[in-house]
Amino acid sequence: MKKYNFNAGPSLFPDSVLEAAAKAIFDFDGTGLSVLSYSHRTPEFEAVVEESKSLFKELLNIPDNYSIYFVGGGATTQFFHIPANFLYGKAGYINTGVWTKKAIKEAKLYGTVEVLASSEDRGFRYIPKGFEIPADLDYLYICANNTIFGTEYKVDLDSPVPLIADMSSNILSRPIDVSKYAMIYGGAQKNLAPAGVTFAIIRNDMLDKIERELPMMMNIKNHVDNNSMLNTPPIFPIFVLRESLRWIKAQGGVEEIHRRNEEKAQMLYAEIDRNSLFRAPVDEADRSSMNICFVMAEGKESLESKFLEFAISKGMVGIKGHRLSGGFRASCYNACPKENVEALVACMQEFEKMYK
Amino acid sequence: MKKYNFNAGPSLFPDSVLEAAAKAIFDFDGTGLSVLSYSHRTPEFEAVVEESKSLFKELLNIPDNYSIYFVGGGATTQFFHIPANFLYGKAGYINTGVWTKKAIKEAKLYGTVEVLASSEDRGFRYIPKGFEIPADLDYLYICANNTIFGTEYKVDLDSPVPLIADMSSNILSRPIDVSKYAMIYGGAQKNLAPAGVTFAIIRNDMLDKIERELPMMMNIKNHVDNNSMLNTPPIFPIFVLRESLRWIKAQGGVEEIHRRNEEKAQMLYAEIDRNSLFRAPVDEADRSSMNICFVMAEGKESLESKFLEFAISKGMVGIKGHRLSGGFRASCYNACPKENVEALVACMQEFEKMYK
Repeated sequence: MKKYNFNAGPSLFPDSVLEAAAKAIFDFDGTGLSVLSYSHRTPEFEAVVEESKSLFKELLNIPDNYSIYFVGGGATTQFFHIPANFLYGKAGYINTGVWTKKAIKEAKLYGTVEVLASSEDRGFRYIPKGFEIPADLDYLYICANNTIFGTEYKVDLDSPVPLIADMSSNILSRPIDVSKYAMIYGGAQKNLAPAGVTFAIIRNDMLDKIERELPMMMNIKNHVDNNSMLNTPPIFPIFVLRESLRWIKAQGGVEEIHRRNEEKAQMLYAEIDRNSLFRAPVDEADRSSMNICFVMAEGKESLESKFLEFAISKGMVGIKGHRLSGGFRASCYNACPKENVEALVACMQEFEKMYK
Repeated sequence: MKKYNFNAGPSLFPDSVLEAAAKAIFDFDGTGLSVLSYSHRTPEFEAVVEESKSLFKELLNIPDNYSIYFVGGGATTQFFHIPANFLYGKAGYINTGVWTKKAIKEAKLYGTVEVLASSEDRGFRYIPKGFEIPADLDYLYICANNTIFGTEYKVDLDSPVPLIADMSSNILSRPIDVSKYAMIYGGAQKNLAPAGVTFAIIRNDMLDKIERELPMMMNIKNHVDNNSMLNTPPIFPIFVLRESLRWIKAQGGVEEIHRRNEEKAQMLYAEIDRNSLFRAPVDEADRSSMNICFVMAEGKESLESKFLEFAISKGMVGIKGHRLSGGFRASCYNACPKENVEALVACMQEFEKMYK
């Protein structure tokens, strides 16, 4: 049976990327050696890092005064590295769910945190708007897309203080104005790479703000200065990341990927809104194009486990909602083909016919 | 031309492991889905972690009062995580080269470091012995095998204080008495996995010693309590690690791997000692079986670049010594086949005939 993977992460890859990854396990870029056994201190692997940086720059139109680096450890590691490097007085955080809560907790170890706005009052089902941003903050921190509750910032915020965004789950899913951010980072395992590598895009003036004496691996400047090779980097995840970036470019860049993502998201949200058995719990303006959450319509709650069972029987994988948000979640990252969403829509329609 | 990979790391894998890795890119353990896209929050991936822990336990005879976990970030990250978790007064470090120097520097951020012994006086070409270990130390820290200078502890030390060992480059290369160590850890990219995952074996009483308030990812107890899934773990490197452990078991376990490692090392050291053009710079008793260093014999120094060129022309990869130690280094980790060492020996003999 064909399977349709809607996991929240790690996420799907295009077939061409999987094929390139499998090939490199035996022959890395024509060297005749496995990418799993290849030294990072070689021109061949340096070329992978350089091309990845250069493709990132091209695809997101990153200005020249920014640096790009890759590092292991996941976004959760950055939750404390960011305040350790940049929080000396106060920082502002917008609380939009589990990931910002964790980031806030870590930041408190290093300085004062002002939660400028929170959507916890309505179960994190919207993105706060219209909050004041004090000018004396070291930085403002947001999570641009919230995988668990299915919300997403649809605009790049204007901030009078350095804006730092966790884009783990929506990087390269839409064009962004990088110049509005001081730092963009994320675990790459949603839209770009296998689990194990984090990307970061940082405005160079941020590197001059680091005052704290930090362990070598915690100081962000070290990663930039050492071109992502401060220690042995996660070589294979970075290799696959390059292949994903190549694929995005070959598809027509972020604009085309964005068009496809909107097409998929609109198709699924339209079905959720239309289908009498389901509803979308997130405010319409803030609905994520990446993580599409839906729950049973009022009065139909008892069908939840039946639909899950039915969807699994139709090949749907990973559509159970996170335990904190319940219901269902279809994660439709860049590499999720339109046919997967069509299959899910058909499955919802078939279920409606059975239980309307 | 056949290539013989002697890279210091990331290192070789047996063909069967590479084949399993490539297969899993399309079909992870019979699920029909890619291991690169598979969620870690699944019984299938949990089974990979459980089997890896269980194989580690079996292969190294790890007593029941120890826990095993896997985490991203590399050994360099543990250089500061270890003192952050365990250093409250004084710790003892044995300085045997670059990696212990880095570990010492990080430890000084958290407490007092006593360097109990150092081999820096003779260019780190031996392992210090007979040093006193004060009983009031929080722990004693060693690097069990020194990749850059080619030295290795051949016995498991007796220590009156908790002994912590970096075994990045010799884990599972020989039987060890785990009960003599409070913690054994290392980057797995030499003997076990692709770059991007660190293993740790820790005696459970150590977890009760953690007093410092630490970021979530820095607190070692969190990794144990969350069964290596505190955040998204490096899934693919852990998958390959399991395959390597399966391979070691299938070969006859660590005893058989050790026999092969000694056979390879003795063959190469014998040639270095015999060949009039080369010499081994490390004290005989402390020669690493993993990283076999050699330099040109006295008076033959001018042949160094010629031999490097010749060896490369014969398919040798990664035998140039580290820039800090010069000369040559053949890294012969577990998966390095005997034929690679035979090819290098033949190459050295041929070169001797040309330039004797």
